[in-house]
Amino acid sequence: MSTSPDLQRDFEYVWHPCTQMKDHETNPPLLMERGEGIYLFDQEGRKYMDVISSWWVNLFGHNHPRLNASVQKQMERLAHVMFAGATHRPAIDLAESLVRLTPDSLTKVFFSDNGSTSVEVALKLSLQYWAQKGHGEKRRFAYLQGAYHGETLGALSVCGMDLFRKPFENVLMDNLEVQGPDCFRCPYGLKREACDAECFEHMDRALNENHETLAGVIVEPLVQGAAGMKMYPPVYLNKLTAACDRLGVHTIFDEVAVGFGRTGAMFVCENLGLKPTFLCLSKGVTSGYLPLAATLTGEEIYRAFYGDYEDFKLFVHSHSYTANPLACACANETLALWREYEFPGALEPKINALRAGGKKLSELQWCGEYRQTGMIGALELVKSRETKEPFAIGERVGYKIYQEALKRGALMRPLGNVIYFMPPLVITEQEIDSMIEIAYDSIRAVLGKTESH
Amino acid sequence: MSTSPDLQRDFEYVWHPCTQMKDHETNPPLLMERGEGIYLFDQEGRKYMDVISSWWVNLFGHNHPRLNASVQKQMERLAHVMFAGATHRPAIDLAESLVRLTPDSLTKVFFSDNGSTSVEVALKLSLQYWAQKGHGEKRRFAYLQGAYHGETLGALSVCGMDLFRKPFENVLMDNLEVQGPDCFRCPYGLKREACDAECFEHMDRALNENHETLAGVIVEPLVQGAAGMKMYPPVYLNKLTAACDRLGVHTIFDEVAVGFGRTGAMFVCENLGLKPTFLCLSKGVTSGYLPLAATLTGEEIYRAFYGDYEDFKLFVHSHSYTANPLACACANETLALWREYEFPGALEPKINALRAGGKKLSELQWCGEYRQTGMIGALELVKSRETKEPFAIGERVGYKIYQEALKRGALMRPLGNVIYFMPPLVITEQEIDSMIEIAYDSIRAVLGKTESH
Repeated sequence: MSTSPDLQRDFEYVWHPCTQMKDHETNPPLLMERGEGIYLFDQEGRKYMDVISSWWVNLFGHNHPRLNASVQKQMERLAHVMFAGATHRPAIDLAESLVRLTPDSLTKVFFSDNGSTSVEVALKLSLQYWAQKGHGEKRRFAYLQGAYHGETLGALSVCGMDLFRKPFENVLMDNLEVQGPDCFRCPYGLKREACDAECFEHMDRALNENHETLAGVIVEPLVQGAAGMKMYPPVYLNKLTAACDRLGVHTIFDEVAVGFGRTGAMFVCENLGLKPTFLCLSKGVTSGYLPLAATLTGEEIYRAFYGDYEDFKLFVHSHSYTANPLACACANETLALWREYEFPGALEPKINALRAGGKKLSELQWCGEYRQTGMIGALELVKSRETKEPFAIGERVGYKIYQEALKRGALMRPLGNVIYFMPPLVITEQEIDSMIEIAYDSIRAVLGKTESH
Repeated sequence: MSTSPDLQRDFEYVWHPCTQMKDHETNPPLLMERGEGIYLFDQEGRKYMDVISSWWVNLFGHNHPRLNASVQKQMERLAHVMFAGATHRPAIDLAESLVRLTPDSLTKVFFSDNGSTSVEVALKLSLQYWAQKGHGEKRRFAYLQGAYHGETLGALSVCGMDLFRKPFENVLMDNLEVQGPDCFRCPYGLKREACDAECFEHMDRALNENHETLAGVIVEPLVQGAAGMKMYPPVYLNKLTAACDRLGVHTIFDEVAVGFGRTGAMFVCENLGLKPTFLCLSKGVTSGYLPLAATLTGEEIYRAFYGDYEDFKLFVHSHSYTANPLACACANETLALWREYEFPGALEPKINALRAGGKKLSELQWCGEYRQTGMIGALELVKSRETKEPFAIGERVGYKIYQEALKRGALMRPLGNVIYFMPPLVITEQEIDSMIEIAYDSIRAVLGKTESH
């Protein structure tokens, strides 16, 4: 047990998210004091590289003078005002920018507070749209195995991972889980770089058989994050949007994790020229400063809710802090920084450095696969390269490597047996090299001791 | 249509919450520029009293130097860090304070981002608790008619208002709606000041008949906010907690709206000496600056999730910005201000001024009832005092009064036919008098023209 009075109070009063609190008896959390660039500093001045951008949110580093100034400036005017019957320039500017940065078909922005709520808003808009169009029978959603779209009960009902949904299984909406891409262990024996998404056949069948009762399909474009940074090729998304458009099923692109440059482009849908019915954004929108989310959609949806008040077609959904001005101001500055840093172009050398690092990690005998999409790199550890046999969950291999990496100055929280890199976009090539070295050494420190095949 | 370029952009890009967007063709939203104390100022410098605290969030006024400084100071250290595997003093301090300010039985704080998520967390903790105790059959929740607990689909499944739930009815959890108090139109012909909550018989029966399948009961203590500030006496809550404790059903107190001083006490549960299983807080926690929420519970619940990692009893729920340090710092300063302003004692004269104002409003022939709980006052308008016949929703009486009040310098957004007052706690007695006068004049301006009985 920690002897730090602050950590003792933490243990006494705080219940941390996604944490077995008993683990804190032996491994207390880091007590973070300050941040600077891509580094975090704990109470004793120890420095940690924020390898996963504090749960995939930070883009431009901690304590960025420009982001600080944007929040401060707005705070001196107006920290918050209700967003029904009132509006403010930070929200208007942000909405206009998001509409301009995303596909032309997306024209309206509905704000909320986090990724879960951005998904809830999309699900609810889709359901109410169909009901108001006289298709109340369209009330289910299809989602992929391994999907993660948040943890409020609506968002959880389109989650394809037992870890998150199992204790709540019997109260969730009756949705449709569909086998999706599994490129590392491709059942067709294909490679994602060259395949034609043969695995789409499952979704194709599901859509053809169920489109009359399906309101929409939700998907994490290109990278299934919580599933272990599982990556799949764009052709899957091409097929998905084409089939949904043909069959009258909404497409919900959840770019909460992959949006704002993580894949090397600002947004996946825009980069691939795809036109989802709904686009969900959060995380990076404030560069990791403040909670904020947005759900974008187009005129076809918007018009279905537009009418005289007495018709009661309006969308009744609200959160008190909708479009919080401080968060919106920070988001506007985030977009300004994106241009000034000359992203996405300036990301290219970083992406290449990460790829070179991945090559080094691939030499490790426990590397089942190193995969990369833009600024996201992931190493899936296996007991055997030949059989791709995974380590048992109970071995907590990832957790042990995480502990080793902490000793070496990197916060590298894993997803099961997947060690991944999703650093702030401002990371330098040299820092990428250091990050890879720490990962390499930490993996060897843990697995070098184990028997290997 | 507005000729302001900013408002035109608002209309083009922004979808506002709980708003029929067509209304903005004729009544564009106020474009707010800055706030100062209890006042908001629009782009043309017009001043509006924030009568409803920007959706019930603001406690100490806008642009408060102390709150600004607290956010600024924290921002210079650390705006955010992930809350799994890491922690920080602002969150630890806030958790400790909340535990100290609430009933002794509440010992642990789980943070999230808004009222909806604080409720989702309570529902999920309750469900998983029962499942882990071998009572998977306890998977429904009871809630009151008129209840509002948020709008994510889980929270919406315990909502007792058609306005919010109807379009989503067929995908919501199968929960149990129970007839609750309706003091203005009491079916027993009693008065809330003197009754024994005879209406509890409905809940009593529901609990006795369903306790074996009920995980919990959720309730807005003393004031059902969205239902129109419906107020009921403490004895109902005494009976509810006693019955639930006896029958093994969790109690969830949703103090998102009434917490942080609105009722004249910091929290209802503490003030009444009641011990709910879960307590949900948000809104006022940051005095209306930033989104933040907390769900509190006690050792019995906590221990059921505590164990070795391999047992998978942990609570898997997270939001990226959980326990955002900026919001936590602002919340800590909010609690410091509460002490320095000598609340709740110093609220007494304000509460009395509001009561005097209510007396004046009661003289209006359309006043069905003026009711008040602490710093919340509400006037229910009726066509006839004798029959209590309500105005038809289509008449939009409340909306018209709201428009009249805007002309007179007050943002007084109603709930249907209920005009209510939930001002920042720092409002002065003189300002309360002005607020009442504006309400009085605005009601007369709209209803003075109508035929009355």
